This record gives sequence, C-alpha cells and structure tokens, in this order.
Amino acid sequence: MNKNIKVIAFDADDTLWVNETYFRDAEHQFAKLLSKYETENKIDQELFKKEIDNLHLYGYGIKGFVLSMVESALELSNYQINPKIIASILNIGKEMLAQPIELLDGVEEVLKSYYGKYKLIVATKGDLLDQERKLEKSNLLKYFHHIEVMSDKKENDYQKLINHLDIDPSELLMIGNSLKSDVLPLINIGATAIHIPFHTTWVHEEVSDNEKSDTDYKTLSSIKEIKNIL
Amino acid sequence: MNKNIKVIAFDADDTLWVNETYFRDAEHQFAKLLSKYETENKIDQELFKKEIDNLHLYGYGIKGFVLSMVESALELSNYQINPKIIASILNIGKEMLAQPIELLDGVEEVLKSYYGKYKLIVATKGDLLDQERKLEKSNLLKYFHHIEVMSDKKENDYQKLINHLDIDPSELLMIGNSLKSDVLPLINIGATAIHIPFHTTWVHEEVSDNEKSDTDYKTLSSIKEIKNIL
Repeated sequence: MNKNIKVIAFDADDTLWVNETYFRDAEHQFAKLLSKYETENKIDQELFKKEIDNLHLYGYGIKGFVLSMVESALELSNYQINPKIIASILNIGKEMLAQPIELLDGVEEVLKSYYGKYKLIVATKGDLLDQERKLEKSNLLKYFHHIEVMSDKKENDYQKLINHLDIDPSELLMIGNSLKSDVLPLINIGATAIHIPFHTTWVHEEVSDNEKSDTDYKTLSSIKEIKNIL
Repeated sequence: MNKNIKVIAFDADDTLWVNETYFRDAEHQFAKLLSKYETENKIDQELFKKEIDNLHLYGYGIKGFVLSMVESALELSNYQINPKIIASILNIGKEMLAQPIELLDGVEEVLKSYYGKYKLIVATKGDLLDQERKLEKSNLLKYFHHIEVMSDKKENDYQKLINHLDIDPSELLMIGNSLKSDVLPLINIGATAIHIPFHTTWVHEEVSDNEKSDTDYKTLSSIKEIKNIL
C-alpha cells in the first residue's frame, strides 16, 4: 500500500451501509403493482431502460428512481393505470427515503481506528439530502472531515475532488464496492483504490472482464481486512 | 466591508441566474392541467402545502417539486385523474431540468473582476446534478474553486462550510437573494453577507420584519454594485 496516503475516501451506499437491497425490494414491489400488465421480467427491463434514459436528467438517487417508476407505470399500462397505483409508487419512494440505516460489519471499527491518522471523507454520488440524512442516522458523521457528494464518479470528477482537497493523486485512497465508480477511475488517475464487493450490484455498475484487466487494486471481502494492508 | 475577506460564496439560483421564474411558470402550467378540479388559487395552496410536507424527505430542487406535483394531482382529483395528465406533469419537470441558463445582469463581469483576488465558491442548496449542469451550461465554472452543495442553509450548515474551508467566519462573504438562507444565518455566526433581492421569492423563503431587525448587512439592487463596496 502507498505510504503517501493522507486522505481516505469512502463510498457510502453498499460500502458503509446496505442500500442496493432496498432498490431490489422496491423493484419487486413495483413489478407486483403492475403484474396485470406485464411479467416481472419485462417490467424490470423496462424500468431499467427508463432509468438509463433519464439518468442525464435525474442523476442517481431515490427521487429520480421514483420518477422513472411513475413514468414506466404510465407507459406499461398504456396510460390506463389506476391513479391509486401511482400513489403506491410514491409511497415506495417515501419508505425508501425513511429507511433505517444498516451499517455493514466492521465499518465503525475501521473508521475509529483511522480517525485522526488520516483525513477521512465520504465520496458518494446520489442525492445530497438523502446521503446526509443517512450519515446522520448512521452516527458516523463524527469520523468524517466532510462529505463530498459527486454528481458522477468518472476520472474527471475524481480529478476535481483531488484539486478541491489540494492533494496529489498518490495521497488519495478510495474504498468502495463498485469497480466502475470507486476503483477503476482512481487507478487511471494515479490514486490508490480498494475494492470491497457487495453481494448485489446494479447492472449499470457492472464492468466487463475486459475493462478490469491491467489494473492495480486490492480486493477485500470485508472492510475489516483493511487493517492487514494499511 | 470587512477587510479580512478571503472567500466569497455566491448563492446560485436567482443570484447568478434566473430560477424562481421557472417554478412560477411550472405552477401555472400545473394549475391549468388541474383546472377542472379546483381554482388556480386552491391548487397553488395545496401544492405549496404538499411541498412543505415533503421537504424533510425530498429536500429542495426540481425532482422533489415534481414528486409533490404528482402527489397533489392525485389528491386534488380524488384519484380520478387521467394518467396522461400525470405524464404531462413529468414533462413539466423534464422541461425545467433542460431549461437554458439565463445569467443575471453583471454576474460574469463581477466574477471576472474578483477571480484570483478571492477564493470564489458557489454555495447552493438544491439538487447536485441540477446545479452542476447549470454551472456548466452557464460557462461560469472556470471562475469557481468549487461548488458547495448544501442540504440546507441554516447557521449550522454555514458553520460546517467554514470548517470545511478552514477559515474564520470573518473571512467569509456570502452573496445571495434570500434573506432567510443567504444573509441572516451568516450574520448570526459572525460572517459578512450582501443581500441582492430577486423580483420573485418563494413563500417559504420570505422573512418577517421581526426577523430582519438588528442585523447588519448591505442590500444592493444589482450584483454590479458590489464594486462600490468591495
């Protein structure tokens, strides 16, 4: 592990706490609400397509997801849907936003042991209010210097983060569950990254074996193993 | 004006560019879509109430506004609404998100003249993706050190901003159109603020005469007048 590291940036969703599971549950509820129109498989596909189509407008996060569910429901029903089902979709979103925080195993222990030794930050994409609420609920806010909410996690976004932190790329370590968003772009700009996969990954975040090759990062099965290498 | 100032923070919506006008237009379109159910006045009131009820979940920004419009439409129609009207509401939101940027008079000239002399930042609440897109479209990004997207603009949020900037409150000047969000909390924590009112203010941002008293800030009618005092 690079000896220069000054800042450790943690991804939030599915790195510090459970998140993707709630989206999978929401998709399942959504498919049930629309089961008279299409099969669950078809509904999943159409919703995913809608989310990708809307990503440039809505970005990541629960609110954009809910707007895409509403739009898909209108289209899948050919505008015949009962308005009460639209109300149920809005409620799926409100429940997601009000969800309690389930920390992943070992997270607090790791933050406690590095607090004061490194500048710890959260680098997350998604909705700001949503991420701040989760951090407050999680009781982890005290460990972090600040939260960097990024509109995307491409090389260029990490370059901006590094400028903003006034550090050299070699001084940044990023820890996250997404190869595409938390690992590969960092390696490409000369920073260090650790990959800790979560059991579920949104299809949009998956990476082909081709993109993975020739890169230099560590993969751990739990955040607790970080102490063995840093 | 305080001589210590190192950082000038600009509010974005209705300080750098026109914004509130688009919300007023959207509300007007929304009322028209629902005109068979209620008067425009009643619809405006119900939508505003819904936005405030949902603010703790959705925060500020266009996506939360659209979700509140959909929910109001369901309720105002007693769940009898034609699903095509829901589709039209989603389109109002998409049009708002795709709106071109109309800079306010004098903005670029002011930024150009202070660039390099002070650290210039944007301090805005709202949706991150939306604010970043507006900054990119506006061509103003080059003047700013970074964008601070805040989940709210209370004293405590500005205190976090000051910690994050590693400065003393007396070194911060905030410029914005909202007394409630951009001026009063800063005065209360010992920073400096300049108020530049926009012709339209969201009711939620209005401040009573009582709250305004005993504070110490300058009011300008245009951002161009800043050069007379700084």
